[in-house]
Amino acid sequence: MTPTPDPETAAPDDLPVVRLKPKANARAIRRGFPWVYADELVTDRRTKALAPGTIARLEDAERKPLARVALNPNSRIIARVLDRDGRGIPDHDWFVARLKRALALRERLYDTPFYRLVHAEADGLPGVVIDRFGDTAVIQPNAAWSDLLIAPLAHALAEVTGVTTILKNAGSRGRSLEGLDDTDIVLAGAAPEAPVPVDMNGATYMADLTGGQKTGLFYDQRENQAFAARLARGQDVLDVFSHVGGFALAALAAGATRALAVDASAPALDLARAGAEAAGAGERFETRQGDAFDVLTALGAEDTRFGLVICDPPAFAPAKPALEAGLRAYERVARLSAPLVAPGGCLVLCSCSHAADLATFQGACLRGIGRAGRRAQLIHTGQAGPDHPLLPQLAESGYLKALFFRL
Amino acid sequence: MTPTPDPETAAPDDLPVVRLKPKANARAIRRGFPWVYADELVTDRRTKALAPGTIARLEDAERKPLARVALNPNSRIIARVLDRDGRGIPDHDWFVARLKRALALRERLYDTPFYRLVHAEADGLPGVVIDRFGDTAVIQPNAAWSDLLIAPLAHALAEVTGVTTILKNAGSRGRSLEGLDDTDIVLAGAAPEAPVPVDMNGATYMADLTGGQKTGLFYDQRENQAFAARLARGQDVLDVFSHVGGFALAALAAGATRALAVDASAPALDLARAGAEAAGAGERFETRQGDAFDVLTALGAEDTRFGLVICDPPAFAPAKPALEAGLRAYERVARLSAPLVAPGGCLVLCSCSHAADLATFQGACLRGIGRAGRRAQLIHTGQAGPDHPLLPQLAESGYLKALFFRL
Repeated sequence: MTPTPDPETAAPDDLPVVRLKPKANARAIRRGFPWVYADELVTDRRTKALAPGTIARLEDAERKPLARVALNPNSRIIARVLDRDGRGIPDHDWFVARLKRALALRERLYDTPFYRLVHAEADGLPGVVIDRFGDTAVIQPNAAWSDLLIAPLAHALAEVTGVTTILKNAGSRGRSLEGLDDTDIVLAGAAPEAPVPVDMNGATYMADLTGGQKTGLFYDQRENQAFAARLARGQDVLDVFSHVGGFALAALAAGATRALAVDASAPALDLARAGAEAAGAGERFETRQGDAFDVLTALGAEDTRFGLVICDPPAFAPAKPALEAGLRAYERVARLSAPLVAPGGCLVLCSCSHAADLATFQGACLRGIGRAGRRAQLIHTGQAGPDHPLLPQLAESGYLKALFFRL
Repeated sequence: MTPTPDPETAAPDDLPVVRLKPKANARAIRRGFPWVYADELVTDRRTKALAPGTIARLEDAERKPLARVALNPNSRIIARVLDRDGRGIPDHDWFVARLKRALALRERLYDTPFYRLVHAEADGLPGVVIDRFGDTAVIQPNAAWSDLLIAPLAHALAEVTGVTTILKNAGSRGRSLEGLDDTDIVLAGAAPEAPVPVDMNGATYMADLTGGQKTGLFYDQRENQAFAARLARGQDVLDVFSHVGGFALAALAAGATRALAVDASAPALDLARAGAEAAGAGERFETRQGDAFDVLTALGAEDTRFGLVICDPPAFAPAKPALEAGLRAYERVARLSAPLVAPGGCLVLCSCSHAADLATFQGACLRGIGRAGRRAQLIHTGQAGPDHPLLPQLAESGYLKALFFRL
């Protein structure tokens, strides 16, 4: 593991200089917007030739200094702001400072070391996601600069947090947009051979960090799972698109009479079952493996009703072109799931689609509920947990929505 | 107390009929929008002569039945939907059914009987707010029909919940818009002579139900107080516009090293102190009585910094005409409070203004924080608690916003 980046490329005075076009919004950058789009930057031959991940000095159109940035001429986001002031460059001390600051927030929020430690731009590490599972950390370096500097980043991470195993997960969609490969690497320690147990919301989740869905567990729903658990006591609960049982296991821990988890992935359901059994709740736990729409339709034909139904599907509208089809899919989820809710029961509908904003998603849900002949009160609107902070200048980062309806 | 309304005025077949104008949106009503505005209703001499609070049958412009409504020819909201289907009229059984449904949600959410029991339109009782404090309930009948039928409402309330004391609070701004008086009444039992202790968020709050701010305690911030408490352990906390200590007492219960409560009202601060002492945290609790802007300015001149600062001001922009001035006031709160936050500390800014939506309010906060020379991560966006459900068709009802920034 290299402790620091190459001092020659990193020396502040030697950094290449790139410049905004006059039409670009330099003011937004000064106010904290973290990105420069390709059409906003003067991309002469010299700039185009810079290697993805190159650290550079960004100037405005009048050649006034703006920020230190990480360049990627292959990406629509051609520059990401690393440092708006000072003379920082991403060396060991710089990584240590950012990681310490990120860690301080999580240690203030959580009693145990299981959380998203770094949430990209909002934590000052553009494009970098780090999830922590006790002594193990999983880094997703989704921007070119962080792929290049993964060694000093991992070194600083071990120093700041004390984690002994560090995995690089290269599976994210973001990496292909940056022209990066999808090869996972073990950066420190040894990849865990068995799923890692994670205690959260009173339940035990089994996180598969090297197979399955790779990051093993989605921390972003933790607060919403906790809120749903408050509604679960004494209820029959249906968890559709359950993955490793995020909502179902929290509901069982809170006293649900039974929980039925539905997912297309048999390995995910096996991990959910392992979690239910670890909590001594195996007898109250059932699974159905299959396409969620098919299972919802089948359950509708049976006479089963649930006091609490949760649908947390994958992103049906990850980007603008998929928006219309995505909204139809969300409406269909609502239409098929609402009839399964007992009178006075609750329905939780989630979206992790960037392209569908809250009002649009809510509209699709209400259409579906209405077409099912049901009416709804909205009792809570949930979002990603506080270990997923947002950069206020980057509204898009608020992707996760969880609507808690009472029917 | 009259157990049921006058059967003559209430008999379904005798109800007067009112009709929508062709331009009115009958489809919205069919889909659950709960109001008819004055310019949408055919207001002939007969309709104008109907007494405020009259129950009527609403038809669309083609004379097709739409809903049972409560009329108030004196209000801009000339009709409120009571029942979209069936033949319901607000008699004893009708009130019992609605109250039981409202109670079932709260009993699912809370272990002790302290909550908003009825949140108006969303709970099927248009314009009616009922807060419960154990054996005591406070009704705010803010629409004419509910003022008229307060006796059967109170009767049903006692039957459904078992409360022994019922107070009518006529202090809300909404009542004057409906042409109603502001006279408080004891409807059942005897008005409590001392403040009522309310256990919430691990703290004890003193709710003054007959003097002070009348409803005694604002339940809507409960979830936000709980979230702030998670950030408070080991921190010095500043609670500005503290009222009876909503945030400060929750912070002390969660292990804040000290809490300073600021409010213009000396009686509110006395209740806050009583709460702190009841929790054995009197020694960690301080107060400053005075104008919040003055106190913030004074604190800025001193060298005091806090790990957590909360500002929960009254509605600076309750309605559209006050929006610009209100946003300036919110910006000023942010500008004066941000410098009091220690590096890495948290700032919670709240708005209960209907007229300022989330994005607008957030913009004002960020301008203020920016002018104070600070930068922010947004770690959480809070809203009113789940005992304040929303009617999805009535977006306006989502008035409360709490932004949790880390600076």
